[in-house]
Amino acid sequence: MTRYAALAAILRQRIEQGLYAAGERLPSVRALSLEHGVSISTVQQAYRQLEECLLVEPRAKSGYFVRRPHRIAELPAVTRPVQWPVDISQWEQVLDLIRSKPHSYRVQLGRGMPDVNEPTLKPLIKALGNTARHGDLRSLYYDDIQGVVGLREQIARLLLDSGCQLDAEQLVITTGCHEALSCGLRAICQPGDIVAVDSPCFHGTMQTLKGLGMKALEIPTDPLTGISLEALEMALDQWPVKVILLTPNCNNPLGYIMPDAHKKRLLTLAQRCDVAIIEDDVYGDIAYSYPRPRTIKSFDGDGRVLLCSSFSKTLAPGLRIGWIAPGRYLERVLHMKYITTGSTATQPQLAIAEFIRGGHYIQHLRRMRIRYQQNRDLITCWITQYFPADTRVSQPRGGFMLWVELHKEFDTLRLNHCLEPLGIQIAVGSIFSASGKYRNCLRINYAPKLTTDVEQAIKQIGLTITQITQSQFAHTEAMGLKP
Amino acid sequence: MTRYAALAAILRQRIEQGLYAAGERLPSVRALSLEHGVSISTVQQAYRQLEECLLVEPRAKSGYFVRRPHRIAELPAVTRPVQWPVDISQWEQVLDLIRSKPHSYRVQLGRGMPDVNEPTLKPLIKALGNTARHGDLRSLYYDDIQGVVGLREQIARLLLDSGCQLDAEQLVITTGCHEALSCGLRAICQPGDIVAVDSPCFHGTMQTLKGLGMKALEIPTDPLTGISLEALEMALDQWPVKVILLTPNCNNPLGYIMPDAHKKRLLTLAQRCDVAIIEDDVYGDIAYSYPRPRTIKSFDGDGRVLLCSSFSKTLAPGLRIGWIAPGRYLERVLHMKYITTGSTATQPQLAIAEFIRGGHYIQHLRRMRIRYQQNRDLITCWITQYFPADTRVSQPRGGFMLWVELHKEFDTLRLNHCLEPLGIQIAVGSIFSASGKYRNCLRINYAPKLTTDVEQAIKQIGLTITQITQSQFAHTEAMGLKP
Repeated sequence: MTRYAALAAILRQRIEQGLYAAGERLPSVRALSLEHGVSISTVQQAYRQLEECLLVEPRAKSGYFVRRPHRIAELPAVTRPVQWPVDISQWEQVLDLIRSKPHSYRVQLGRGMPDVNEPTLKPLIKALGNTARHGDLRSLYYDDIQGVVGLREQIARLLLDSGCQLDAEQLVITTGCHEALSCGLRAICQPGDIVAVDSPCFHGTMQTLKGLGMKALEIPTDPLTGISLEALEMALDQWPVKVILLTPNCNNPLGYIMPDAHKKRLLTLAQRCDVAIIEDDVYGDIAYSYPRPRTIKSFDGDGRVLLCSSFSKTLAPGLRIGWIAPGRYLERVLHMKYITTGSTATQPQLAIAEFIRGGHYIQHLRRMRIRYQQNRDLITCWITQYFPADTRVSQPRGGFMLWVELHKEFDTLRLNHCLEPLGIQIAVGSIFSASGKYRNCLRINYAPKLTTDVEQAIKQIGLTITQITQSQFAHTEAMGLKP
Repeated sequence: MTRYAALAAILRQRIEQGLYAAGERLPSVRALSLEHGVSISTVQQAYRQLEECLLVEPRAKSGYFVRRPHRIAELPAVTRPVQWPVDISQWEQVLDLIRSKPHSYRVQLGRGMPDVNEPTLKPLIKALGNTARHGDLRSLYYDDIQGVVGLREQIARLLLDSGCQLDAEQLVITTGCHEALSCGLRAICQPGDIVAVDSPCFHGTMQTLKGLGMKALEIPTDPLTGISLEALEMALDQWPVKVILLTPNCNNPLGYIMPDAHKKRLLTLAQRCDVAIIEDDVYGDIAYSYPRPRTIKSFDGDGRVLLCSSFSKTLAPGLRIGWIAPGRYLERVLHMKYITTGSTATQPQLAIAEFIRGGHYIQHLRRMRIRYQQNRDLITCWITQYFPADTRVSQPRGGFMLWVELHKEFDTLRLNHCLEPLGIQIAVGSIFSASGKYRNCLRINYAPKLTTDVEQAIKQIGLTITQITQSQFAHTEAMGLKP
């Protein structure tokens, strides 16, 4: 981390802890430069960064002050999905979303695309070239079906940060986390089986269940602590659930981190009811707090947790490299892996292994953690500024996804149609529910650089929402109905 | 094709057509050099090549003569698999085979690995590097779920050679042919459904059916003309078959090319019984004859044929790039593709597109066709030389797989165990049958350079077979049973 970023982080923390109250004057540039033994310009850069996040404001001739907080948007309500297993719908909307080409929108806030323009990724691009040069033919061979052992060793090392003690032999490299989830599910479940999921839930997971002919049992979920264990316990008593599939860390789309105590209770519950757990940790490495949160897998004593992850959110999705730690289901998963893609492409595995070995992965994470946290603050400000007053907004603790809940009557499908001609893409809420709930919600990706283009887009979205609401209510009133 | 290779091809053809009889004297070097307007040394090189394939032999002071043919090994018998749908077994043997690392054997003749050491592949390795260089970030993005359009356009162009008129929009890039087959099957079938296959059948296909909980109905197959249409028709009348899955061109493992007339009749049959056809064409581009054979897809009028292929046999399996032309099942296949791997890695797609665009693909094919045909001749000679007299051998018309049928009592699993400590790998026959038939068969990959190491390995295999047979028969006789 650069000097100024480090200082900015310290000041941010003090402000968030209330050591400096709203409106209070902050230490002078000179004082901070002495206190921290850094140059004047470093302190100025740090203050400029906090200013960009709208945390501090300069006042002429009197230095920097803690900004009076904007109206803090309320959190989305605890979700109330249908309480029985359902077949999944919404494929058409998902297809709309995923068929959009990288640059077919002016401002693309819909897909789960990380920022791949950071200089800390350069060594990876170099590595991708290296493995091809010098007549190195390894990238042309089939590799071990479990994946390049050198990469598995590096992943095992990284997993220590999440509390997992695993070795390379317990890991299987997959073609993105999609294949990990799909192989995990097929290793355990048959068509018709019931899978309990947090709700809202990543649309890719939903569509996987649909494609495999399984039913989703959506469990009420708290936007701060995750899946409701009480509701889950009741559901497990009532239904023959085969697997609990969830994203406890930096949840997509809600952004929460499930407390460790909940993770342990969930595991105990799974043991009591003897169900497996599929843990999607794809955003876990870009939690804003360091050390990163623990996985449920790290508490797993009897190999019932299948940990799935990938480099698609931390590095780049185009590489299509993920992995699974399938615990006791290793051989079944290997069979599913074999019949799905045979083995995973060798070259990106070699390149990523080189990138991690060189220490570049940790460095990149450090940078992205700060970048994404700053973006979260800024985009939240913009939304409280430009969206209707009754808008509820999630408070992500990692990743780069914001969940926005609008008036309960609002239809984001309609919003999406209005935004398309403006070249703005969002993800509609309904694809995050098996039964098409959350029509009044949308997910915004705040990974990209938050340029004025993006600010204008957020402004336009807010404007469009207001227009739609007005016309909608005018209509319902005309119909003689209460809004 | 080089001058001498071209000339060798002409001479080979004349010999095979019987224009020069066995033992007959061939035209002098000088005569050929005049007839074809090539240098003396070119003719000599051509003759040397034919000599290596054991087609001609030099005699002191009297030039080259057509070699008296070796005892021609008999073809394997038309297969007689069980006549009802069965669940697939043999996963353990397949796992043994695929878990072997590229260099864990001294002589590896078991896996379907092409020769990736040819200079004509250099531009591909270069292209893999290029797409990474110059801060080109395309390879980091998610691409269109259908795959890089530039590559789909090139594939559509190549498909014209097989008689297919398709455009890029009708193609989906997959992670190897494995994903193409798996998505195709899941797009049409449910677990428990019956799939008719040629027999013997590629073990990857078998294991895919097993993994998807489908039943295989093995159809008797002729080693020269492929699946028996009569047997297939009877099977279709008797069983509710959902799909016919087969490899009509350069079949793996038998190497036959199904006659076009059969392809048309098969299609008519499929139309009459309204079943879909999944056509695996993964070896089709390396048929020894040019132009390459037509696909069943090229006769398909109503989109019931799903054509699956890849670059794993023609270029390199480590790239994991395949494709499917799913006809009327496009949207279902897209859904299956999305839930299987999300999208396919971008970089190898860009590299292969560049490779094809540069004309390198066609050039590489031209070279490999000749290389593999020469290898087929040589390995067949070695086997007739070193294997027991009652050995039956396939006559591949493309690809690089030889099917060897031993005495009906022989057990190649036992052979495999004896060969492992010798560092020799073969593929046992039983993995090519759902019910574990073909225990007396083995498949040999003749793609690698046929060095003396390989000849010695073939010799050792022959020797081991004889030893096992003798001990086995001694045993059965001791038991007072007829051999």
